Amino acid sequence: MANSPSGDSATDRIVRILETFTSDRTVQTVAQIGRRAGLPSATAYRQVGALVEAGLLERDEEQRVRLGMRLWELALRGSDALRLRQAALPSMERVQAEIREHTQLAVLEQDEALFLERLSHPQAGANITRIAGRLPLHASSSGLVLLAFSPRERQDHVLAAPLARVAPDTITDAATLRRTLAEVRRSGFVVAAGSIEAVSTGVAVPVRGADGEVIAALSVVLPREAPTDAAIAALLRAAREIRARLATSR
Amino acid sequence: MANSPSGDSATDRIVRILETFTSDRTVQTVAQIGRRAGLPSATAYRQVGALVEAGLLERDEEQRVRLGMRLWELALRGSDALRLRQAALPSMERVQAEIREHTQLAVLEQDEALFLERLSHPQAGANITRIAGRLPLHASSSGLVLLAFSPRERQDHVLAAPLARVAPDTITDAATLRRTLAEVRRSGFVVAAGSIEAVSTGVAVPVRGADGEVIAALSVVLPREAPTDAAIAALLRAAREIRARLATSR
Repeated sequence: MANSPSGDSATDRIVRILETFTSDRTVQTVAQIGRRAGLPSATAYRQVGALVEAGLLERDEEQRVRLGMRLWELALRGSDALRLRQAALPSMERVQAEIREHTQLAVLEQDEALFLERLSHPQAGANITRIAGRLPLHASSSGLVLLAFSPRERQDHVLAAPLARVAPDTITDAATLRRTLAEVRRSGFVVAAGSIEAVSTGVAVPVRGADGEVIAALSVVLPREAPTDAAIAALLRAAREIRARLATSR
Repeated sequence: MANSPSGDSATDRIVRILETFTSDRTVQTVAQIGRRAGLPSATAYRQVGALVEAGLLERDEEQRVRLGMRLWELALRGSDALRLRQAALPSMERVQAEIREHTQLAVLEQDEALFLERLSHPQAGANITRIAGRLPLHASSSGLVLLAFSPRERQDHVLAAPLARVAPDTITDAATLRRTLAEVRRSGFVVAAGSIEAVSTGVAVPVRGADGEVIAALSVVLPREAPTDAAIAALLRAAREIRARLATSR
């Protein structure tokens, strides 16, 4: 692949352009894209043009640019995320109907919890999760589950890094975090009160694939002082259902 | 952007690689990707390597390649598809709970109906739709709605092309199709019996955005001889709710 004078590849440039789009910024001018991606103006115009031609970006009448439906289609059509999400959705709907709070599915991605799906109950409380959004592993209930069941090297890596205090009750001490992870492995669930938002408690359980490996975390977000027993029971049952559904859909 | 000897750009090559992944083919070797994308072996290895490094593709222990979670994240995070789907999901869930059949949301994309979401009822009948899958405009109930409310030029374009007979009752005659589209615009819904599968009837309505423009089609798939009134009523109400939700979420 040909490199630009600055040494980055065409693939890097495309990723940098796609990264400038976020849930708060779905429409941009080419100049804004170029500035945010750190690309020279001529490069930005040429590269955005090529991406529009390929359908990965779209231009509206005012020449503003947004992500293309074709990109969405290509990213989803052959993805494991879609298969997992399809297997999980019926059980997530039942959890949401029972518990009447936000219900969400996350996977481990580059040392963060990446949220594949979120069902929001209209009457439910605050929740900072977004689909395709991320949360730190040590602070979110989903992250604690994903971290507890990940390989030792990854745990050591996360524990060695500074643990940011996201909310007043975030675990920021490595020894406490290590004990918490051991407790999650023992009990098979986690209750994290106020660790990512002071007003809420996250409850999460591991979701195992057909071969028994933990592939995701299923969680609900409750008001801080709410009882957690019904949520834990509903999540554990849902995780068993999802595993069974993944086993039969192979 | 630098072109390869064959004249295609890096963007084209990336799209061709991503296109080799489908719902039936989520894992491939680099050799398979190269063959299916029509790329020389060395190019395929270099390009897949760059995409793996960027996180858009992932490699497993056996060196087989799949779409990366990072691609999924980039494609969804800033996309209008996600916003529309989020606004539609609560109403789709209500339609599914009421009608107890497959409920789906489609948009117009490159002269086909592209399905953004599908809720499948466990007891529901056959349905060939997949999320991120496509159906022809003239044969699916969603497609007929999307075509009926699209600009005249697009209608002429579709009507001028051969209309494939997907099922015994697919409309394959341009004059009949034109009358059907006019009827859809008048009534505000379509009932398409056996046009895409002999055993089922699709019922679809337009979904309008905040500014009144038709941006999607909402549909249910019923058994061929089932009554359609309840489905039409549920879909029309859902479409009104989605429009209201889109208006307040801007």
